[in-house]
Amino acid sequence: MTHDCSFLEDLDLGDDQVSFAEGRRDAHAADWGAEQQDRGVVPDAVVYPESTADVAAVLAAATDREVPVTPYAAGTGLEGNAVPAHGGISLDLTRMDEVVDYRPEDFQIDVGPGIIGADVEEYVAEDGLFFPPLPSSGDISTIGGMIATDASGMKTVRYGEIADWVLGLEAVLADGTVIETGSRAIKTSSGYNLTDLLVGSEGTLAVVTRATLQLAGRPQQIRGGRAIFETLDDAAEAVFDAVRTDVDVARIELVDGVSARMANAYLGTDLPDAPMVFLEFHANHGIEEEIDLCRAIFEDHDVARFELSDDDAEMESLWRARRELAYAVASYDPDLEPLHPGDVTVPISAYPEIVHETKRLAEVYDLLAPCFGHAGDGNLHYSVLVDPDDEAMVDRGERLYREIVERAIDLGGTATGEHGIGHGKREYLEAEHGTGAVETMRRLKHALDPTDTLNPEKIFPETIDGGRIRRPEADE
Amino acid sequence: MTHDCSFLEDLDLGDDQVSFAEGRRDAHAADWGAEQQDRGVVPDAVVYPESTADVAAVLAAATDREVPVTPYAAGTGLEGNAVPAHGGISLDLTRMDEVVDYRPEDFQIDVGPGIIGADVEEYVAEDGLFFPPLPSSGDISTIGGMIATDASGMKTVRYGEIADWVLGLEAVLADGTVIETGSRAIKTSSGYNLTDLLVGSEGTLAVVTRATLQLAGRPQQIRGGRAIFETLDDAAEAVFDAVRTDVDVARIELVDGVSARMANAYLGTDLPDAPMVFLEFHANHGIEEEIDLCRAIFEDHDVARFELSDDDAEMESLWRARRELAYAVASYDPDLEPLHPGDVTVPISAYPEIVHETKRLAEVYDLLAPCFGHAGDGNLHYSVLVDPDDEAMVDRGERLYREIVERAIDLGGTATGEHGIGHGKREYLEAEHGTGAVETMRRLKHALDPTDTLNPEKIFPETIDGGRIRRPEADE
Repeated sequence: MTHDCSFLEDLDLGDDQVSFAEGRRDAHAADWGAEQQDRGVVPDAVVYPESTADVAAVLAAATDREVPVTPYAAGTGLEGNAVPAHGGISLDLTRMDEVVDYRPEDFQIDVGPGIIGADVEEYVAEDGLFFPPLPSSGDISTIGGMIATDASGMKTVRYGEIADWVLGLEAVLADGTVIETGSRAIKTSSGYNLTDLLVGSEGTLAVVTRATLQLAGRPQQIRGGRAIFETLDDAAEAVFDAVRTDVDVARIELVDGVSARMANAYLGTDLPDAPMVFLEFHANHGIEEEIDLCRAIFEDHDVARFELSDDDAEMESLWRARRELAYAVASYDPDLEPLHPGDVTVPISAYPEIVHETKRLAEVYDLLAPCFGHAGDGNLHYSVLVDPDDEAMVDRGERLYREIVERAIDLGGTATGEHGIGHGKREYLEAEHGTGAVETMRRLKHALDPTDTLNPEKIFPETIDGGRIRRPEADE
Repeated sequence: MTHDCSFLEDLDLGDDQVSFAEGRRDAHAADWGAEQQDRGVVPDAVVYPESTADVAAVLAAATDREVPVTPYAAGTGLEGNAVPAHGGISLDLTRMDEVVDYRPEDFQIDVGPGIIGADVEEYVAEDGLFFPPLPSSGDISTIGGMIATDASGMKTVRYGEIADWVLGLEAVLADGTVIETGSRAIKTSSGYNLTDLLVGSEGTLAVVTRATLQLAGRPQQIRGGRAIFETLDDAAEAVFDAVRTDVDVARIELVDGVSARMANAYLGTDLPDAPMVFLEFHANHGIEEEIDLCRAIFEDHDVARFELSDDDAEMESLWRARRELAYAVASYDPDLEPLHPGDVTVPISAYPEIVHETKRLAEVYDLLAPCFGHAGDGNLHYSVLVDPDDEAMVDRGERLYREIVERAIDLGGTATGEHGIGHGKREYLEAEHGTGAVETMRRLKHALDPTDTLNPEKIFPETIDGGRIRRPEADE
């Protein structure tokens, strides 16, 4: 689908803010996951706003002309979230990467959506502060992208997800209206919570142009390390026991034996190809007591090795297999590629079951499916490896993928714990939330973006008019 | 305004579920704050649903007939939140007070909206769990009411507000559609966050019929007590310093000298009529270190007494002035009544200023205005005392009240930290959020409740058609 975007040249934007160049457009039609998904439609133009006014001008003009606009930043999404489904404009927010205001006495910082997560952490480090919910991709992904998907990360088990750390937003609606949401007060019960409606809405309701983030004080004590188990069931049950015993852990990451084997191969290490749990403890007092409590629980599950350190270099070394895992999986076998990589998340009591089921299903379908995840949240990242040229294998992979996601929903969990629905998981929205809730979401979308300008054909499964979102029933 | 509610007799409800009796109707036209606000309009009928199906049937029928429905429970609101503005039906949810499901291994409980907060705590206590954001009125107020206003309480400084502890909801829209929101997984990025849109929406978007609450493990160490300061500025600055130093405190309550005097008079105690800070510490380790850190900070602000205990009875005794404060203020002078009691909340760095300004303004207007609050959140409860028969005094009180709220907004805070907008604070919605955000809220309201059935004339300031909400501009 091609949209006439020549109107962009009439807006008050600099020459270097609008591009119709093929290379730039192509680069905005992909994300980390899109390589394995159906590729999106190449946008007709890329726009680089440098201010809220730029964003408002582009959205108002695009809405007038019914040209779709899909916000884009680092392109680290896994579900095609920022990949245009209908061409139009890719709105690249990476130039809006400034620190607008910093109030260390309130543990607050106001930033543009294009700022990289790690840059926020660097900015506030000298005051002993940090931004706790940063995802593993925080070194390259942007705050705006994290807000769009309500991302979370390894430390979510102790500190919560992005939504818990966003106090307020400035955002632009499809018609160009600029709104401010939330409050600098750390709590408010004034009016509807627009902040949390926009967080996780994947750029379908508004484009975030500024975020007020809450920061936390750095813990005085940190210990990090690794436990190795004999079986994956032992490892998953140990995590569940630790969480239900309320062990105060800041990271607790499960890695299965297949993943461990890949990490050993990639790193040239000689660790056992056995399930591992990577740990980090944060505290101001009593960290050894928490570690002892955790060790005792792990021993009840026959832990084979339990190694922790307070030395930065040693912690880094103990964690290396986890940190390099994505690269290890990607490079394990050049003929195999991950099919629909992503995550599911379940209630912690169901964690041993989803882990067990995932491995059992991988055997049933005779596929390599390394899995790992932010176990303390009940989170599991699967990676179903297939040879894209082997149709039967791809078909088995599709079925395995679907069974994992459906099983997670059956267990009271979610099809996507931290990567959004995007394009990839639209078919699960209704299975997870039911007809009433999905229709309600659709009504909200229609109320704020009646022309479906913003990121069309994302989140919602059903479409009309060549894919643009259908109107809610109430208005039909 | 009178609405014909005889259709209720045709619904499938028991005889004792619908009442047209004057006494019952009158009792549903008041809340704690409404006595001092303009009194609401007495409802034409009171309905006591006992199931989600009952709620759905009443809402669908009422919407068909354009009869307003205002949810009601314990009536402990301060802003007229649950008091009908247009008569119609008062939907009393107190019979839906069951525990639907309890999953201690996941720290989760599913409850009806009518359950009293303290009953939830009692239910889960034997497993060492508690519900952290419970407000001070938790012994009598319901979970549904807390959700409606996104309430919070003394422990919010450490544990967050209600919204942080609601994982999902079952709710009924105005047209009778039943929706389920959220997930039992502790994080999800699947679809729009309907849960947090409904939390704090004061029954204007949907009626909550079930809530999934997250629970926390009880801390192993608790210490409680009190500090007495020479000046209110010292006390407020000490709180700010403690918070910005990241002292791990679970309750930190400011009480001004006027309030202390009233508490002394009420309790017959001989404490100094001086500003106090009431403290409670929760920890599993290192509680003494946190207390020492707090004491040192308070000493920098010339604290006169700093008394803590780990003995339950002694803690209770040290806290008595704070716990009985509402009664002490109410009974101080029989000729004086609090005008518009409620709260404002500001960023913690602005806390000393809002406290100082409130006292300064009370002097300017020559009024007694005891103030106290959940200081660690930047929260201040004011109580402007006036003789209702003294017109000039009431006028001065109105001006003082307005100046306090406007000052809080100017300082980057909110007109209402934990009691909602209700009827009482509608005029501040736009001052706090701006035109764009308020118009956006209006669009959401219209999308979910186009006939304005649910709790009309709340939250939004402007009205048409005898007070029912006006349609958003986009649809005009």
